[in-house]
Amino acid sequence: MLPLFPLRIPSLARSGQSLLSKFSPSTRPIVPRRFFYGHISDTKMAPQLEPFFKQVDESSETFIDRLRKAVAIPSISAQDENRKDVFRMAQFLADELTALGAEVEQRPLGKQPGKEHLDLPPVVVARYGNDKNKKTILVYGHYDVQPAQKEDGWATEPFELTIDEKGRMYGRGSTDDKGPVLGWVNVIEAHRKAGIELPVNLLCCFEGMEEYGSEGLDDFIQAEAKKYFKDTDAVCISDNYWLGTEKPCLTYGLRGCNYYSVSVSGPAQDLHSGVFGGSAHEPMTDLVTVLSKLVDPQGNILIPGLMDLVAPMTEDEKSLYGNISYTMENLHESLGSETGIHPNKERTLMARWRYPSLSIHGIEGAYSAPGAKTVIPAKVIGKFSIRTVPNMESEDVNKLVFDHIKAEFAKLNSKNKLDVWLQHDGKWWVASPKHWNFSAASKAVQQVFGVEPDMTREGGSIPVTLTFEQATGKNVLLLPMGSSTDAAHSANEKLDRRNYIEGTKLLGAYLHYVAEEPATE
Amino acid sequence: MLPLFPLRIPSLARSGQSLLSKFSPSTRPIVPRRFFYGHISDTKMAPQLEPFFKQVDESSETFIDRLRKAVAIPSISAQDENRKDVFRMAQFLADELTALGAEVEQRPLGKQPGKEHLDLPPVVVARYGNDKNKKTILVYGHYDVQPAQKEDGWATEPFELTIDEKGRMYGRGSTDDKGPVLGWVNVIEAHRKAGIELPVNLLCCFEGMEEYGSEGLDDFIQAEAKKYFKDTDAVCISDNYWLGTEKPCLTYGLRGCNYYSVSVSGPAQDLHSGVFGGSAHEPMTDLVTVLSKLVDPQGNILIPGLMDLVAPMTEDEKSLYGNISYTMENLHESLGSETGIHPNKERTLMARWRYPSLSIHGIEGAYSAPGAKTVIPAKVIGKFSIRTVPNMESEDVNKLVFDHIKAEFAKLNSKNKLDVWLQHDGKWWVASPKHWNFSAASKAVQQVFGVEPDMTREGGSIPVTLTFEQATGKNVLLLPMGSSTDAAHSANEKLDRRNYIEGTKLLGAYLHYVAEEPATE
Repeated sequence: MLPLFPLRIPSLARSGQSLLSKFSPSTRPIVPRRFFYGHISDTKMAPQLEPFFKQVDESSETFIDRLRKAVAIPSISAQDENRKDVFRMAQFLADELTALGAEVEQRPLGKQPGKEHLDLPPVVVARYGNDKNKKTILVYGHYDVQPAQKEDGWATEPFELTIDEKGRMYGRGSTDDKGPVLGWVNVIEAHRKAGIELPVNLLCCFEGMEEYGSEGLDDFIQAEAKKYFKDTDAVCISDNYWLGTEKPCLTYGLRGCNYYSVSVSGPAQDLHSGVFGGSAHEPMTDLVTVLSKLVDPQGNILIPGLMDLVAPMTEDEKSLYGNISYTMENLHESLGSETGIHPNKERTLMARWRYPSLSIHGIEGAYSAPGAKTVIPAKVIGKFSIRTVPNMESEDVNKLVFDHIKAEFAKLNSKNKLDVWLQHDGKWWVASPKHWNFSAASKAVQQVFGVEPDMTREGGSIPVTLTFEQATGKNVLLLPMGSSTDAAHSANEKLDRRNYIEGTKLLGAYLHYVAEEPATE
Repeated sequence: MLPLFPLRIPSLARSGQSLLSKFSPSTRPIVPRRFFYGHISDTKMAPQLEPFFKQVDESSETFIDRLRKAVAIPSISAQDENRKDVFRMAQFLADELTALGAEVEQRPLGKQPGKEHLDLPPVVVARYGNDKNKKTILVYGHYDVQPAQKEDGWATEPFELTIDEKGRMYGRGSTDDKGPVLGWVNVIEAHRKAGIELPVNLLCCFEGMEEYGSEGLDDFIQAEAKKYFKDTDAVCISDNYWLGTEKPCLTYGLRGCNYYSVSVSGPAQDLHSGVFGGSAHEPMTDLVTVLSKLVDPQGNILIPGLMDLVAPMTEDEKSLYGNISYTMENLHESLGSETGIHPNKERTLMARWRYPSLSIHGIEGAYSAPGAKTVIPAKVIGKFSIRTVPNMESEDVNKLVFDHIKAEFAKLNSKNKLDVWLQHDGKWWVASPKHWNFSAASKAVQQVFGVEPDMTREGGSIPVTLTFEQATGKNVLLLPMGSSTDAAHSANEKLDRRNYIEGTKLLGAYLHYVAEEPATE
């Protein structure tokens, strides 16, 4: 990766590194003053940062309490029965922002397509500051969360923020994405308490359907691009993760995601396997057979033609992977096991960032509880998704997937009925990491953490990133708060206290460096 | 099948048939008197039957209310959280029997193997009558039920008995096996109310773990064979189903069942498929691949050597299938679809009765809810079972299953960990249908329903059948109450009012014909 800062101060960088290596997540970084001045000399230290940082530290308990309240609201967008909680969470967020003097609106998105009995959660938009002489930064986050049940393997109640002795704050949504969203709220509060003016105009766009394909958001952004969002100079999204656990990163690329359901149905109701086993076609047998034809245990996708859609690797790109500060140990630490597929860091990062992958998530309709139930399920629905990369077009992927699955099912000569459909898709995205939006964020990382960030891509998909880029025509930056061990989407999701508090400082510092940047496109 | 009754009265049989064909399940059969006398002339009509039948009809609402109370207790033996309800059900049953003057005991079975925090439900044993001049019949049933949730596709609350206009009584356990168990209770009550002496001594053995492999029951039966059960002259079990919906059957054979779990685990916690997809071995991919190697969509078991354990078909046996009153329409009706594998009745019955089958029941640990969760499950457990037949020995089956699964997993070159184990097994059983125990039941069927029963085998497994045969050394008869459309183990399980009320008459009539039989072994 091309260094963003030709002028390096190795001794300081090292001292920053060694300092960091001593941090326990629960202690905030004590940056020595000489280190401060050293930076001021080469990055035009923004004068308001010190009191802002001080205020964040003093308000940290207030900020953690804010996160505790947010986690307590089970705003699960994928489960109908929790829709009311998603709305509650929107109201909570709107109230917090209003109390800090922001102009807040909850914008309705109408009924949920395919589930017309449900209203889509509102987009919470807010404006803080309206000074024509300042840059305007549009920040995005989401206030909905993935499903979570104690039985899924949680050591604590998923919707009660629980902080352990190492400062790990466990709770569904803590890192994905309530922590980062509240980070922006905290930034405003800290500035007000410290009596510091926010150096930019802030536009907030917080949605409630991100974990269910951001239903309805694209149209909203397109419609508001030249209205509510018209002053936007750059976009910042905090909804991904550091590559490791100590070093922050800035992200300029994402994989897309096409999520599919494939159902097989036969009998009118579940059957007793003793009475009917051997005499009737079993949907579960058919489904398992079809699912086994999608991807092999080495991660190779078995759908003919799919890999032909992937952009070839250039020598330039190939050279980038070696410099990323990432090791197989990092992978094993975040996996909690040594079950990585590839032999080295480079191939691992390529598999995560620039090649597609296919994961089978589960089966709906079969017996999923502990115990032993001798049932033949009447209808089973397999769920799987494909992470997409340049230059895979969703329509092309869908056609290959549908054709392959129908062809494999036809081979079974089963009298059962198969259906396969796309639940939702989101396109991949790659941006320019040399834009001032990224330089400002990089300086902020050095200021708060004392290290240069890794410039990374992500395996995950944040479809809205592309939408913002296309709708506003502005540069989009991904500025993560959480670390690689946060277990987003999993049991025991957490956000480290350090990432939340120093992350709040990072978001604020970023805004100050943005204000300093020459306003070029 | 050799006819049990050389002396046929075709016209009467036909009139019985035609009468039956007109029954709606909600109307009880009105057997014409001439038909009655016709029977008396060739089967020594037991004089107490008419008043007994009359009493059953008069008490039918009381009997249905008894079933309603029983269904309301969710005695699910496979789910820890319902264990208390299984105990409640045992108490309910003990109270009902005690109130009718039976000597009742609840025999504890100790802790549940592998789940020592749980007590096994008691065996409810009861004695009614102790006359050395009477035969003693040991009857068995179970008061636990399969899991059930409204979301599984129930049209009504699974634990509220709901009767529709056709007299179909919906509720978990209605037909499997609370209806039949209460049938025996009803028989005692009807005799007392009608002032008729019970013609035999009745020994009851009702267990609460049948749906979870009858944990602990075998040892109990072995231990009591020469004690509590020592006077037993024959055993009667009502826990299976008619072949169709109109004609009762007597069952002399059962398949066994070996229930397996196969787990694949890798990462320490669930993973985000965007972040880790493509870089780590996914347990779900491995499991699906392994499960796809067990059985093909035509029902052929793919485990090498397994079919070699199956007893070859004799010409004698082959000739039996043609006479069974069963049609492909019956199959389609009970399936609610035309997804049968085989082209004709004979091969369908053979597949159900005398060949093994393998069913995949579900996967524990994967995403099973509606919606779209982009998770890579850390540990998934596949559940499948094999229905066994003569001459498959459980140990041989286990070895073939374990070897095959381990060999298939080894081919995957996955770094994940696989484990496979037997959850429980129950052996197949085949008895002699020419014993007086069967003749008495056959006469009772003719008396109550006006038709000769089919002599059948069953695809389901009732492991205790074999245990009783081996422990008591006496003949065991399976005398079903429910019909083929009762959907045992499924959503919308039901028992027809007619099957419950006429079935109660059948159980009582059986005891009277037993009393008439010459007491040969």
